[in-house]
Amino acid sequence: MPANSLDELVSLCKRRGFIFQSSEIYGGLKGVYDYGPLGVELKNNLKLAWWSAMVYERDDIEGLDSAILTHQQVMHYSGHEDTFSDPLIDCKKCRSRWRDEDLIDSRCPSCGSNDLTEPRDFNLMFKTNVGPVDDNASFAYLRPETAQQIFINYKNILDSRSMRVPFGIAQIGKAFRNEITPRNFIFRMREFEQMELEFFVAEGEDDEWHRRWVELRLDWWHDQGIVPNSLEPYHVPQEELAHYSKATVDIMYKFPHGLEELEGIANRTDFDLASHSKKGKYTREKDTKNEHSTVHFASLPSGLPADAGKLPYVIEPSAGVDRGVLAILNEAYTEETLENGSDRIVLKLKPHLAPIKTAIVPLKQNHADIVSLTNELKVQLAKLKVGRIACEKSGNIGKNYRKHDEAGTPFCITVDFETLEDGTVTIRDRDTTHQFRLHRDKLGEYLNDQL
Amino acid sequence: MPANSLDELVSLCKRRGFIFQSSEIYGGLKGVYDYGPLGVELKNNLKLAWWSAMVYERDDIEGLDSAILTHQQVMHYSGHEDTFSDPLIDCKKCRSRWRDEDLIDSRCPSCGSNDLTEPRDFNLMFKTNVGPVDDNASFAYLRPETAQQIFINYKNILDSRSMRVPFGIAQIGKAFRNEITPRNFIFRMREFEQMELEFFVAEGEDDEWHRRWVELRLDWWHDQGIVPNSLEPYHVPQEELAHYSKATVDIMYKFPHGLEELEGIANRTDFDLASHSKKGKYTREKDTKNEHSTVHFASLPSGLPADAGKLPYVIEPSAGVDRGVLAILNEAYTEETLENGSDRIVLKLKPHLAPIKTAIVPLKQNHADIVSLTNELKVQLAKLKVGRIACEKSGNIGKNYRKHDEAGTPFCITVDFETLEDGTVTIRDRDTTHQFRLHRDKLGEYLNDQL
Repeated sequence: MPANSLDELVSLCKRRGFIFQSSEIYGGLKGVYDYGPLGVELKNNLKLAWWSAMVYERDDIEGLDSAILTHQQVMHYSGHEDTFSDPLIDCKKCRSRWRDEDLIDSRCPSCGSNDLTEPRDFNLMFKTNVGPVDDNASFAYLRPETAQQIFINYKNILDSRSMRVPFGIAQIGKAFRNEITPRNFIFRMREFEQMELEFFVAEGEDDEWHRRWVELRLDWWHDQGIVPNSLEPYHVPQEELAHYSKATVDIMYKFPHGLEELEGIANRTDFDLASHSKKGKYTREKDTKNEHSTVHFASLPSGLPADAGKLPYVIEPSAGVDRGVLAILNEAYTEETLENGSDRIVLKLKPHLAPIKTAIVPLKQNHADIVSLTNELKVQLAKLKVGRIACEKSGNIGKNYRKHDEAGTPFCITVDFETLEDGTVTIRDRDTTHQFRLHRDKLGEYLNDQL
Repeated sequence: MPANSLDELVSLCKRRGFIFQSSEIYGGLKGVYDYGPLGVELKNNLKLAWWSAMVYERDDIEGLDSAILTHQQVMHYSGHEDTFSDPLIDCKKCRSRWRDEDLIDSRCPSCGSNDLTEPRDFNLMFKTNVGPVDDNASFAYLRPETAQQIFINYKNILDSRSMRVPFGIAQIGKAFRNEITPRNFIFRMREFEQMELEFFVAEGEDDEWHRRWVELRLDWWHDQGIVPNSLEPYHVPQEELAHYSKATVDIMYKFPHGLEELEGIANRTDFDLASHSKKGKYTREKDTKNEHSTVHFASLPSGLPADAGKLPYVIEPSAGVDRGVLAILNEAYTEETLENGSDRIVLKLKPHLAPIKTAIVPLKQNHADIVSLTNELKVQLAKLKVGRIACEKSGNIGKNYRKHDEAGTPFCITVDFETLEDGTVTIRDRDTTHQFRLHRDKLGEYLNDQL
């Protein structure tokens, strides 16, 4: 039972400390958000789940964490300088700039003038001046995707890790796009995070690997708690494909604001490695050569038959971290009426994603023995290394249960007078609200099992 | 036994896939580096160790992950717009720009002219235009430190997490400084990562908390494998203190290029919360008020006695992630001669920091049963969730041992013909090079213990 609206999620996120508008006390920065105490845990847990599936559980994928500042030529030869743009219309009178769809009866929404330019391409990449001299020559881009740094590090990784096709390079990191109209909370942001895999395969085996990765990625999203019914693979029709893609399947999710892309899985062929190769062709359209790259990617021992100057093809599952967080929050969001007639909001997050794994609540905040035992338990459970264990220091039990329902905490443990006597605590299950007593010596085993 | 020179470390880092020059195939981007397959694991392990010590093992610290793009007014009221600068000298002839110390006999190192300007302040913050219109009004800064976003989120975290002093907010993330002369590999970079804690305390208790945090941080670095002898606390003299600081202790480390700062622990008083408060004073020098902030921080229920409009003081342990990686690599770097007379380079990393926890090496790469058993073991050990377990697919045993010595892998497990017969494998210890046999069923317990 997902949320009824994006507003419900935004409100929960702010109230419980998942996500805040960035630079809020100064009026906010549009399309930029901060992850609060619970948000950072949820996001990190999601990233770890992806990294585990890619790097730790497999044997054919290496990790990378490259820089955000990117050499101008990388984005030139990737094609982004030429093609990564939106058409915009300038108002000649007040000099404001608009998308076609934002105009009102062909008039400027700001000053009402109809003296407008034709649509002109506006590049979506952020740039910044690097070094002491502020001129047009010495700038770098903030990368608009993490993928390109994977391609330009292809040789470094082959050299240092002796990989042979089929193999992949996985990366999680920030990317930046100067969106004209950022919108829908953390769905379309100007600063966001990606989880991208570039999986290199032999030409001829690319279609099969593409199919396989679509399946693997759907399965992975299910494992994160998104029911199959909320996901829909969309086979992008030929005429809508990006210039680098032979085939793309988008994994669409039913966001509160509509069915939108959560992840794209593209067959990028050898487009990128060719573009970044010394003297390689840098667009499919023009017969122009790369004059700046220092590396012949095709001459590297990639494991292709006879290594006869051929480049591998690449399958790219590219997922949005923030979109993932939004989808998972939405999917977990539940409003329900309990047996006792009371209503609650509860986040039914998978335990591995929950920001707080277990909360320990003392029955009385001012009883020295109970508080001291609470702290002892915290130390004991922190040793499990399952993530964050919270110790509550204020509020009564009921209030804490409600708070941790909204935080998605799978278990609350209550320390009471019986605990002082016989060492047992009460465990409350988030989803069922059922409670039972367990001796504290058995807590570790129980929680290890459940989390 | 640390490295003899920075060059030795740079070379190992490139060879084994720890760290690469960024945008290297296009000539590189100065002061910007990419973390390769082993580097990303080492860095993530270090960040997790810090996060665990701050957020998971304590009960008084909340986490945050805020944006890099920062509202101009944040950096204005923080004082960075006025003071975060280096003095530079312009050559009037060729328009190049220099630090005083780089001039040669008061002449431009580029064209030899002595027609130079007086030193002028050059701000070290990167900025970028945000939104469709490219004018001076609509820009954001790339944050030069993560600290300021902690201060501006102070209310959000108090509201959502009901914290009371003493409490802290911890954050790990990228920061950017347009250094004039980035140098010494990943020591002084233009894009780097910080681990920052702002710990809020009552005025009067600040000196004691400052002392305590210096101790805690020294202990933590020891736990990361840096011997006490390599660290030196430096009590910054009054006349060298930053404008916001009442007292600062730098933790200095003996880097290969000299004794330099690894972490700074400052008593920032209430400078930052005051500066960001509605109508608060925004520098200590001038009597100017903050005209843009929407929040009175002093009116929040922070747990100060009677909450009488007082702001807490803040102790800030601020560590460099990349400097930490460099120090840890340097400290672990060992050249030694083994009993059999052969020389080796080995990274004696603490197991929790090692990029690869265990490598599984088949005695023969072309023996189907041995390879299949190797893969089985990988699946078995991946379930321990201790991090990356590597499966070797090429090279003989000796070559793999040498490779994993340089990668800092604590254990190599060899699968041979005896394994097929009786289920035992050989375990080789990285540091002692001693080998012994163990049944595969006992591997999990052994590795869980050791890692």
